[in-house]
Amino acid sequence: MSSTSTPARGRRRSEQTRLAILTAAYELTTEVGYPDLTIEGIAARAGAGKQTVYRWWPTKADVLLEALALKADLKVSTADQGSFEAELDAFLQDSAALLAFPGVAPVLRSLMAEAQRDTDFRRRFRDGFLSKRRAALETIVERAAARGDKPDRLSGAFAADVVFGLIWYRILATERLLDQDDIVGIEQLLTGRPGKE
Amino acid sequence: MSSTSTPARGRRRSEQTRLAILTAAYELTTEVGYPDLTIEGIAARAGAGKQTVYRWWPTKADVLLEALALKADLKVSTADQGSFEAELDAFLQDSAALLAFPGVAPVLRSLMAEAQRDTDFRRRFRDGFLSKRRAALETIVERAAARGDKPDRLSGAFAADVVFGLIWYRILATERLLDQDDIVGIEQLLTGRPGKE
Repeated sequence: MSSTSTPARGRRRSEQTRLAILTAAYELTTEVGYPDLTIEGIAARAGAGKQTVYRWWPTKADVLLEALALKADLKVSTADQGSFEAELDAFLQDSAALLAFPGVAPVLRSLMAEAQRDTDFRRRFRDGFLSKRRAALETIVERAAARGDKPDRLSGAFAADVVFGLIWYRILATERLLDQDDIVGIEQLLTGRPGKE
Repeated sequence: MSSTSTPARGRRRSEQTRLAILTAAYELTTEVGYPDLTIEGIAARAGAGKQTVYRWWPTKADVLLEALALKADLKVSTADQGSFEAELDAFLQDSAALLAFPGVAPVLRSLMAEAQRDTDFRRRFRDGFLSKRRAALETIVERAAARGDKPDRLSGAFAADVVFGLIWYRILATERLLDQDDIVGIEQLLTGRPGKE
């Protein structure tokens, strides 16, 4: 779509359309489920053209992974709170709340299944979603290292393996989400301290 | 297939056929990959009738899940070794070796993806494979509790979430398998002790 508006306004409008498409994709999946989600349906709900969606994303799974990456960025805090334990707790509480949000766990389940079927999407899912979530947790561990309250022997990469391993295993294998006992358990495990019991 | 042999011999033969089918299913997947695996191919390789396979298993995924559950039972030690740390180490070393075995990780990836698509299979996969692996690790934690060297606050269920969470996350998300650093890391995490560094 060519535009006669100024570049600045064009960028604004294009960013508004992008966000409308991401929101439409997420809302529509929670209503109809991943198998019945279509690019046509997403475009219609966003008031955009089908070609506009395809210009930015190759598949419906790619729209959803970006929608969820954006949601996670907005909902899961990595802000400096003065201590590793406080930041880990905020990260886990926010992550558990996001997972409990209607539709989030089923969409994640569908995307991970898609990533096993389609190796190209697996790479895009890893780079566009999984790695970003790991990086978010790793910033907390790195800040703790700089502050000086990082537990001995804990690396950001291993912390991410443990935390996201447990979260994904729950989503895919047990269908149980994270509860407060899990959060306390992870905190005890990673900090080596009793945690809030 | 009716049999004129004695019940005992009939049972023996039927058990031999069952094992031949499980072996054929596993070997064939490692050769052709899950998408191209067929019940016909499994039956042919096992020298059994297609109906014999269908009599015991509803889908190719069910044959494979039983083949892998059997492999894991045979390869991953839960024997009493006198200490929780020794038994956890043996369990993790055996599990890492099994995962590194040709074809095992790709088959597990295919089965977990299938479990996301098909909710009936998800239940059978959980009951026939995932729960059995959890129970194997839980016996080690229970033995430690009886012996008196179980780490404080560690439950068998949480240990299983952490260990299998990390294993499955690696298989599905990162494609990296468990190495010695991971095993040491898990041992440090679960025992709260330095572990073998």
